Amino acid sequence: MDIATILGFVLGAFFIIFAIANGGPLGWFIDFNSMLIVVGGTLCATMISYPLDKFINSFKTVKHVFQVKQLEPTEIIKRIIGLANIARKEGLLALEEAGAQIDDTFLQKGVLLIVDGTDPELVRNILETELAFIEGRHKESQGIFETMGTLGPAFGMIGTLIGLIQMLQQLDDPSSIGPAMGVALITTFYGTLIANFICSPIAGKLKMRSAEEILLKEVMIEGLLSIQAGENPRIIEEKLKAFLSPKIRSGLEKKEDAEGVGVEA
Amino acid sequence: MDIATILGFVLGAFFIIFAIANGGPLGWFIDFNSMLIVVGGTLCATMISYPLDKFINSFKTVKHVFQVKQLEPTEIIKRIIGLANIARKEGLLALEEAGAQIDDTFLQKGVLLIVDGTDPELVRNILETELAFIEGRHKESQGIFETMGTLGPAFGMIGTLIGLIQMLQQLDDPSSIGPAMGVALITTFYGTLIANFICSPIAGKLKMRSAEEILLKEVMIEGLLSIQAGENPRIIEEKLKAFLSPKIRSGLEKKEDAEGVGVEA
Amino acid sequence: MDIATILGFVLGAFFIIFAIANGGPLGWFIDFNSMLIVVGGTLCATMISYPLDKFINSFKTVKHVFQVKQLEPTEIIKRIIGLANIARKEGLLALEEAGAQIDDTFLQKGVLLIVDGTDPELVRNILETELAFIEGRHKESQGIFETMGTLGPAFGMIGTLIGLIQMLQQLDDPSSIGPAMGVALITTFYGTLIANFICSPIAGKLKMRSAEEILLKEVMIEGLLSIQAGENPRIIEEKLKAFLSPKIRSGLEKKEDAEGVGVEA
Amino acid sequence: MDIATILGFVLGAFFIIFAIANGGPLGWFIDFNSMLIVVGGTLCATMISYPLDKFINSFKTVKHVFQVKQLEPTEIIKRIIGLANIARKEGLLALEEAGAQIDDTFLQKGVLLIVDGTDPELVRNILETELAFIEGRHKESQGIFETMGTLGPAFGMIGTLIGLIQMLQQLDDPSSIGPAMGVALITTFYGTLIANFICSPIAGKLKMRSAEEILLKEVMIEGLLSIQAGENPRIIEEKLKAFLSPKIRSGLEKKEDAEGVGVEA
Amino acid sequence: MDIATILGFVLGAFFIIFAIANGGPLGWFIDFNSMLIVVGGTLCATMISYPLDKFINSFKTVKHVFQVKQLEPTEIIKRIIGLANIARKEGLLALEEAGAQIDDTFLQKGVLLIVDGTDPELVRNILETELAFIEGRHKESQGIFETMGTLGPAFGMIGTLIGLIQMLQQLDDPSSIGPAMGVALITTFYGTLIANFICSPIAGKLKMRSAEEILLKEVMIEGLLSIQAGENPRIIEEKLKAFLSPKIRSGLEKKEDAEGVGVEA
Repeated sequence: MDIATILGFVLGAFFIIFAIANGGPLGWFIDFNSMLIVVGGTLCATMISYPLDKFINSFKTVKHVFQVKQLEPTEIIKRIIGLANIARKEGLLALEEAGAQIDDTFLQKGVLLIVDGTDPELVRNILETELAFIEGRHKESQGIFETMGTLGPAFGMIGTLIGLIQMLQQLDDPSSIGPAMGVALITTFYGTLIANFICSPIAGKLKMRSAEEILLKEVMIEGLLSIQAGENPRIIEEKLKAFLSPKIRSGLEKKEDAEGVGVEA
Repeated sequence: MDIATILGFVLGAFFIIFAIANGGPLGWFIDFNSMLIVVGGTLCATMISYPLDKFINSFKTVKHVFQVKQLEPTEIIKRIIGLANIARKEGLLALEEAGAQIDDTFLQKGVLLIVDGTDPELVRNILETELAFIEGRHKESQGIFETMGTLGPAFGMIGTLIGLIQMLQQLDDPSSIGPAMGVALITTFYGTLIANFICSPIAGKLKMRSAEEILLKEVMIEGLLSIQAGENPRIIEEKLKAFLSPKIRSGLEKKEDAEGVGVEA
Repeated sequence: MDIATILGFVLGAFFIIFAIANGGPLGWFIDFNSMLIVVGGTLCATMISYPLDKFINSFKTVKHVFQVKQLEPTEIIKRIIGLANIARKEGLLALEEAGAQIDDTFLQKGVLLIVDGTDPELVRNILETELAFIEGRHKESQGIFETMGTLGPAFGMIGTLIGLIQMLQQLDDPSSIGPAMGVALITTFYGTLIANFICSPIAGKLKMRSAEEILLKEVMIEGLLSIQAGENPRIIEEKLKAFLSPKIRSGLEKKEDAEGVGVEA
Repeated sequence: MDIATILGFVLGAFFIIFAIANGGPLGWFIDFNSMLIVVGGTLCATMISYPLDKFINSFKTVKHVFQVKQLEPTEIIKRIIGLANIARKEGLLALEEAGAQIDDTFLQKGVLLIVDGTDPELVRNILETELAFIEGRHKESQGIFETMGTLGPAFGMIGTLIGLIQMLQQLDDPSSIGPAMGVALITTFYGTLIANFICSPIAGKLKMRSAEEILLKEVMIEGLLSIQAGENPRIIEEKLKAFLSPKIRSGLEKKEDAEGVGVEA
Repeated sequence: MDIATILGFVLGAFFIIFAIANGGPLGWFIDFNSMLIVVGGTLCATMISYPLDKFINSFKTVKHVFQVKQLEPTEIIKRIIGLANIARKEGLLALEEAGAQIDDTFLQKGVLLIVDGTDPELVRNILETELAFIEGRHKESQGIFETMGTLGPAFGMIGTLIGLIQMLQQLDDPSSIGPAMGVALITTFYGTLIANFICSPIAGKLKMRSAEEILLKEVMIEGLLSIQAGENPRIIEEKLKAFLSPKIRSGLEKKEDAEGVGVEA
């Protein structure tokens, strides 16, 4: 679970609801018509902007905003060095069995390509294209939430304009002007809230998660190609650690020292 | 038919009209003068910004927003491999007949260039220039809709200012102030709606469609050059599949397995 | 004459004036003081931003917004191939006479450099620097109109603030409030109109014209260097046609077929 | 201490408080509910956008806004040349002792890598990756303050909308309208102040500090690699001084002249 | 003197003051408190964003907005060719005396480096780093004025919010509402004016001046390296003229013709 996301949503919602409740009934801020215009309008305009499958897919990615990554980079490096040791001692074909137990599909696919004896250039080509598509898909999900973050306030304004125009056409009853204008402003309130409390922050966290995953996959590609080239596991380790932030790297070194012999599968 | 576009437009229009109808007669939101300023002004200012043929052409591209692409990438790859098999078995000249039956003009043109014995460098040059021009045309169409999306709210504001200035010059009759101001706001309503419900989403979908088409054409160029170089159809297939998203690629592989022998023309 | 520019300005002005006239006398929208602040202020601030000669020069470029380019790319290619034929048959020195009759100064300059026996690298260097300066000048003119498009609404707002502050200081006479506020809004109206109906569209069209001219000059440079290298006119033609949009190219090919023999000077 | 930061915060706060105090009691501008929405909302939305550790870390970097850098570039160059002299006279291994006394961890790490006999390519790789991570961390801290600078006014607007909607729902008591609207505007006041007086300026200064530190580290990398390559200390000095601004460089040269012999450890 | 800057400031100020004076006493637009918030606040927030020396330095660069460059590019080229002739006839060491008389410190420094027999690669390195620092300093000065142009309207809005909140808290005396709101708007007026009439235009002109100076210095570097390489003065002239705009270049050629023999020191 991503503590920051949970804390941000729960505390933020509490602050806003507390501030609203302090000044009057919450019911003043709930209006079905206004939701229809802002939420419905924003979703529809986003649906026009993107293909249906990408639109639907983006909502599935929201779960990444609440989860932290399962695979630690140090874990990945250890696994790759384990594979390198196997390949060194028993040959590339021995990787088939080890590959079958890997739970990361990207790494597994790379191992299978190596076992199949695929040309190194083609291995890099296939894995990097796959990485480019993963990155593209991530960018699209972020883009959809950014688009909704832009459209939200716009449909909020459209709703407010509708309310204002209707109010101005029936000024006969002065006592209804205030509440009518209040209702008109609710759509702008919804739109601003959706954009700044939901869509933009989600797009931001998705971007962070994407950067982490891409880095991991780059470590995998580099490691796989080094295994295929038959490089020394020690040197592979040095190469891969250069991808890590100095903090994580020193953590890795300490652990190794503690474990005594280093990494052996 | 692009379901997302249709759904987006129909549902979105329904939401907005429903919300309007809930608060008063729809007639309050229809004003000929306001349309003239916002729609007319936006179109005229866009016409000054772009050459006439590009302006007119951009409206023709709107149909792509409602259609999904006819050619699947898997289909294209199969066709190219079919051509590669013909070229391998019967020689490059045998492609002339096969080329005549291709319905995609870009692919057909490439085949004809190969049959003519054009220098490979020139083939790539011509096809890539053609692709650059196609991309440029796509960008221009998107740009025209983005320009209209910026100008719409601006002319909406111009209309509202006209209405406000006129209203403020004749404050004698207080009962007319409300409706006059309501009418003044209609142009801003039109401008915001045109920008956020029509122009920006259309520009967004056009961008998506363009990316798909460019990718397809890049696959074609790579395939054609490989055919001309006399490469093995199996290797061509591997190379082209690297352009596909992993999802489509695995779909392709499954189909191949089901069909048994793979792709042969 | 550029039909789109004329149509855009005439129709757009008609729409705006028609909408204004429908709601009251046009005189309400004419105010000398407001023009002074918005037009004068915008021009003065732009003058501070740019050197005087570039500021004045930008207004001269407005004529390009109303004209279509005189030289067709097909025409230029024919001329270059004509020159290539002369150079092939009679030698580079024979180009001197032909060069004297060229009306495009850029092409003429290039021919003279070749006749002078200038080193090919220096020819490319000089012509590309010249092209870079032309492009820079175009960018500056667009930039000046974009700057005015940003400053216009800003000075409109400054004028409206002046009017509002003055109105709020003398609220004694309620009957004058409306008209005073109306006049205050006129500067914002002017500023928005200048930006969105005049400056931004002019900057847009200038950008389009610039792209066309740069492409033409790139064709010329490529052609001149090929002539100097003594390449075959047929191959030069193929090379230059790759710069054209496929539409123009196929038009060129059809014409050639109709003319029978192709291009000979 | 960074005089500009202190002066800016103290004087700016004085100006704003002075201007407020001139027009009425300061108490009018303090509202707990408004703080909750703006400060709380902004922090929560930022927490959703970023991982928790980076969010917390960014607040630790604020101290750099108040400090000036401790290491002068001239000091660093002297130290590197001192190391170069040791390496020249006593060999690379003699650096171990000198390295232990360096207080800059980046420089120390580089020296240890050299003493360990690490391959020069790997030394550069490790140090540059470390530098890239440092730069990435700096960018993230700036990004977090920029995000808060964008979210501040947005939550200010959300607060004002809440206040306005509540006020418009209870217009019965005209005497409370003014103060209620005043309170509603306080959130916008907070949001604008937080963005323009605190967050954006902090992000700006962090960017400046980052550029200074990155430059220093680049000097170190270049120097360390030159030492490892066994280059002449004089030439190393010339190379490193090219990284300095001309002003600092001439200051360095003057000092050297005054010190007579130049730099020797 | 830069005529455009003077004219822009004088005429612009006249237009604004004239428009203000037409509608009421100028005194309505002068308010000490408002100046404190807008000018003081903007300067303080900018001081937080930048180091103190860069902040102060940026105000010194304002003089460049009023001056035109002293060194014409044609003048510089003549001088370099003069130096090239001396170097050719009397050797590089003879440049020492000529170098001492040069009033441009950048050119002088380059000549001294050559006389000292510095390695050509190091000469280029040192001069280009110096140029990069000059460019960086220019960018920083522009950036400081752009920052002030963004902060000005923000502090204007902060001042207006302060005024509005205070006014809304004391609505008892209706006759004071108007003037109080008028005073509140003065800060927005100041902020908009400072941004659009002073800061942005100054940043714009500084950018133009910077581009001119950078171009001149690039000509110098190219010239100095050619002198060091012992190239023929005629060829150096051709090379350097390629940096000039065609207009200036043809002016240079005409002058040469008039002077008869060309350039000799």
